[in-house]
Amino acid sequence: MSLSWRCSATDGAARRGVLRTAHGAVETPVFMPVGTAGTVKAMTADAVRATGARMVLGNTYHLMLRPGAERVARLGGLHRMMDWQGPILTDSGGFQVMSLAALREMDEQGVTFRSHLDGSRHRLTPERSVEIQRLLGADVTMCLDECTPFPASEPVAADSMRRSMRWAARCREAFVPRPGHGLFGIVQGSTYPALRAESVAALAGIGFEGYAVGGLAVGEGQPAMFAVLDCTLPLLPASAPRYLMGVGTPADILGAVRRGIDMFDCVIPTRSGRTGRAYTSRGVLNLRNARHAEDARPLDPACPCPACTRHSRAYLHHLIKAAEMLGPMLLTWHNIQYYQDLTRGLREAISAGRLDAHCAEVEAGWAAGDAPPEDNIGDDPAAAALAEDREAPL
Amino acid sequence: MSLSWRCSATDGAARRGVLRTAHGAVETPVFMPVGTAGTVKAMTADAVRATGARMVLGNTYHLMLRPGAERVARLGGLHRMMDWQGPILTDSGGFQVMSLAALREMDEQGVTFRSHLDGSRHRLTPERSVEIQRLLGADVTMCLDECTPFPASEPVAADSMRRSMRWAARCREAFVPRPGHGLFGIVQGSTYPALRAESVAALAGIGFEGYAVGGLAVGEGQPAMFAVLDCTLPLLPASAPRYLMGVGTPADILGAVRRGIDMFDCVIPTRSGRTGRAYTSRGVLNLRNARHAEDARPLDPACPCPACTRHSRAYLHHLIKAAEMLGPMLLTWHNIQYYQDLTRGLREAISAGRLDAHCAEVEAGWAAGDAPPEDNIGDDPAAAALAEDREAPL
Repeated sequence: MSLSWRCSATDGAARRGVLRTAHGAVETPVFMPVGTAGTVKAMTADAVRATGARMVLGNTYHLMLRPGAERVARLGGLHRMMDWQGPILTDSGGFQVMSLAALREMDEQGVTFRSHLDGSRHRLTPERSVEIQRLLGADVTMCLDECTPFPASEPVAADSMRRSMRWAARCREAFVPRPGHGLFGIVQGSTYPALRAESVAALAGIGFEGYAVGGLAVGEGQPAMFAVLDCTLPLLPASAPRYLMGVGTPADILGAVRRGIDMFDCVIPTRSGRTGRAYTSRGVLNLRNARHAEDARPLDPACPCPACTRHSRAYLHHLIKAAEMLGPMLLTWHNIQYYQDLTRGLREAISAGRLDAHCAEVEAGWAAGDAPPEDNIGDDPAAAALAEDREAPL
Repeated sequence: MSLSWRCSATDGAARRGVLRTAHGAVETPVFMPVGTAGTVKAMTADAVRATGARMVLGNTYHLMLRPGAERVARLGGLHRMMDWQGPILTDSGGFQVMSLAALREMDEQGVTFRSHLDGSRHRLTPERSVEIQRLLGADVTMCLDECTPFPASEPVAADSMRRSMRWAARCREAFVPRPGHGLFGIVQGSTYPALRAESVAALAGIGFEGYAVGGLAVGEGQPAMFAVLDCTLPLLPASAPRYLMGVGTPADILGAVRRGIDMFDCVIPTRSGRTGRAYTSRGVLNLRNARHAEDARPLDPACPCPACTRHSRAYLHHLIKAAEMLGPMLLTWHNIQYYQDLTRGLREAISAGRLDAHCAEVEAGWAAGDAPPEDNIGDDPAAAALAEDREAPL
């Protein structure tokens, strides 16, 4: 049997469920830490697991260039290579080709590009992307699509979306069904409701094990993103999992879960951790800020991670100022822990039928925090910029 | 009662013993990982402990500049700040002032210098160094000395050593005895046996809880270093622990333990880990080397660390090539694990009265390794250069 998802509770449009894969079951809504190049940056696999994370992302573009998909396969696949026993979702590489690679040339058959690492020439087609993801051993394979730039005129967005739909059909054709594995289609159409609806209809006609909403978190802002979800999600098959790609801040996740999204990935917790920012139950803290230099309090007294249970804000400030690796290590761990605790809280609230009240409490915690405005970047352009730019090499 | 050391077994000149401190007992011979700026680089305190390490080093020079000794004290001391519950030895800062600081001016009272971080002006005297180490909360405080440059003529080495001996007396005077804490004197005298003997006599006349051999691992080479140990160690009080500062490679440690050294610190395992080199029971491997790219074997099948039990050489190669933080994290962990296992093996061999046989077996393992000559840097100038240069900021 293919990968499957079953809903266990709903609260309004929000859903709690279980995704069953070849590498075990995962409760949704789920946040998947990003493991771009075969590692969640600055964390051991044990540490990722210790946060409660049960599913991670791998990146087709990065892994096809280094160490190479065939090499990963010869080493037993991505799970074995990175010692991650839970499910892995791989993206298709399309987004990174457009954002990182040089000399991209799109045609109807695929895209040709030069590696950002060494300038070598590569070609990615829907068929090759699916093959690479099979070589990596992905539990969830994503269709190769074109992430429509933002902003795009309606005709440009329509052409781009329709090519992605033709590619989705080719991906479906190329995908070899295996027990516990599945292929997700990606809804495109920019901010145009009619195009999103056309895209949903095209994908549903082909049929996938899950549906992603793509082309968001590319600078359109939270209101426009939520508007797309509002017009798109009601059209998707209720029986399949829904994945919002590359999103987002904690506030984005709250809003998207309330609209019916089941799966998330984003570099914000890992990348922010490496630059000294911590997401907490009382808002966002910038540990570079000198006001933390003698603060003996824990980062977040509600958090069970080592950064919070073992150390002071002052120590974390010191590590970040001194450019010690342990700073990014501890703050990444903390942020992933926070995202896991956030989604666990949402799952429990859905089951209890009190999602609205729970979200209000979470938001009140952020607002009541002692973070000064300059620390709290949760909704500012810097955070939006982070969201735009998915994981790149160090 | 002050910090104390008791010998539990000997084999030739080698000694096994227990160092009792305010933060617990530590078996010797012991290798102390270097925690320059309040962190063993790229490792959590839990990970350091998991290797079997029971005592770590802190650095007076780095910590006085950032975050500042008084600040560390206000935060509860170095143990609490870095969450290290075992004993900590702090060096005096003298070595780093000479190797890192700008515009150093030595006089009889102390040394004035500018910070390598921000150019700020600082002064270190024997009294201030002891005070800083007290503020940090060191279990073992080191006397401020002048690390005599190598090579030095006999008159220069004599003048330098004699000033260090006058400073040692001032450190003894400044040190406030506390239960489980102690002050170590440092033998200087370059490669001149008569000067080393004079230095030992001066220190023994003052009286310390332990004795370090300083001024080695500064480019003199292993034979010259061992020659200094051969002429110095028999003169030291047999009842006190002996610490060889800044040493060294695994082979250096074998030779020094056989000559009667009890304590070691060195940046080689941590720094080598960050640059892709791994010390193993079968020699040194350079994980940057392309020959590891498809090698599914563990780094060292005899090692219990996560790098060896969870991953392949191919994955470690990939992480290092991709500049992923997890590469330095795993290789540092492995190298510290290797150094801990090496010293544990030496302790057991001393108790069993088979140190010579054990060392021969360890050396045979290194020689039988599959590391090609270009990987095995155990005794080459690159390793010597590493040994010369103690821990610097990232």
